[in-house]
Amino acid sequence: MSAALNYPPALLRLLESLRRLPGVGPRTAERLALWLLSDTGTRALPLAEALQAAAGALRLCRQCGFFCEGELCGACADAERAAREILVVEKATDILPIERSGVFRGTYHALGGKLSPLDGVGPEHLRIQALLERLKKQKPPEVILALSADVEGMATTSYLAALLKEEGVTVSRIAHGLPAGGGLEHADMLTLRNALNERRPAL
Amino acid sequence: MSAALNYPPALLRLLESLRRLPGVGPRTAERLALWLLSDTGTRALPLAEALQAAAGALRLCRQCGFFCEGELCGACADAERAAREILVVEKATDILPIERSGVFRGTYHALGGKLSPLDGVGPEHLRIQALLERLKKQKPPEVILALSADVEGMATTSYLAALLKEEGVTVSRIAHGLPAGGGLEHADMLTLRNALNERRPAL
Repeated sequence: MSAALNYPPALLRLLESLRRLPGVGPRTAERLALWLLSDTGTRALPLAEALQAAAGALRLCRQCGFFCEGELCGACADAERAAREILVVEKATDILPIERSGVFRGTYHALGGKLSPLDGVGPEHLRIQALLERLKKQKPPEVILALSADVEGMATTSYLAALLKEEGVTVSRIAHGLPAGGGLEHADMLTLRNALNERRPAL
Repeated sequence: MSAALNYPPALLRLLESLRRLPGVGPRTAERLALWLLSDTGTRALPLAEALQAAAGALRLCRQCGFFCEGELCGACADAERAAREILVVEKATDILPIERSGVFRGTYHALGGKLSPLDGVGPEHLRIQALLERLKKQKPPEVILALSADVEGMATTSYLAALLKEEGVTVSRIAHGLPAGGGLEHADMLTLRNALNERRPAL
């Protein structure tokens, strides 16, 4: 009996690599690989080069933790921004969504996670000390906590708020309420409770 | 007013490359890029290398058009298989699904498409001449046409069947009928018509 035909080794190895990507199963990996290789010179190689360039050049800003190619990210390097508020997020990837909302033009600080005793994440695992040192240097008019509205996020917010208040800093947190475009009928009970508790004067 | 913060150039370039992949939009590209770069040494670089290795090593079998790394694919290089039937498909990517069904162990022939006068695809654009040359050399006991069950696929089947019959070759085509696991209530009219027309003795 003849051996079953299969893809050649180089293609199998590429399929294996693509299947490790989040959300990519065997069929998607096959579709991507065949697309990438169907016009070898113009598809696979530029992607390979972009991957290598990004892996080689990317750093995390030593001050706020956002992505950059030098020592400081664009926000931290900007003297005008550095004089304004510091907005604290969990992850570096939370920064651009806030930036894109267009209402904030200060600097950011990525904690690198949130307090989670069950997962063994305590204050010493987050970039809290670095935040305290920035406060002494930058003296921001306000620190805004923009963490998740889940149990760990809210515990981290409370912990940081108490800590920062001791340092004499004005601390606020983002509001919890009905999401934009969301009808009441689609909101869960906790969201509604938060929206009611944080109600604002209507006029 | 300070400039808006954005990802650094190397990351933007990677996002741009990932967004070209089929089925990948801006959000998926961002998720893939950040996953790839979150553990630089072990994620982005192996994928880059796999892409370069595949782009460098992959060829199309000069006889059947399937993927291979040398001159001939595994099936065409196998003397036992080469003595059996030739199965004709439209695209190289149609070969493995048939191989995986486990019922065929001859060699394949990818046409590189199907006749489609509206798109300007005539017989001279398909690998038909190469097929005729293979027939003279391999003298297969049978040629099986396994093209799509759509208008162009069926026209190509008819065209090839007539041509191959002239060459004195036994030609067959795959059956059209009810798909496995498909209930009658889910079958469209054309499928039902084909299934009736191609009915077989039940005993």
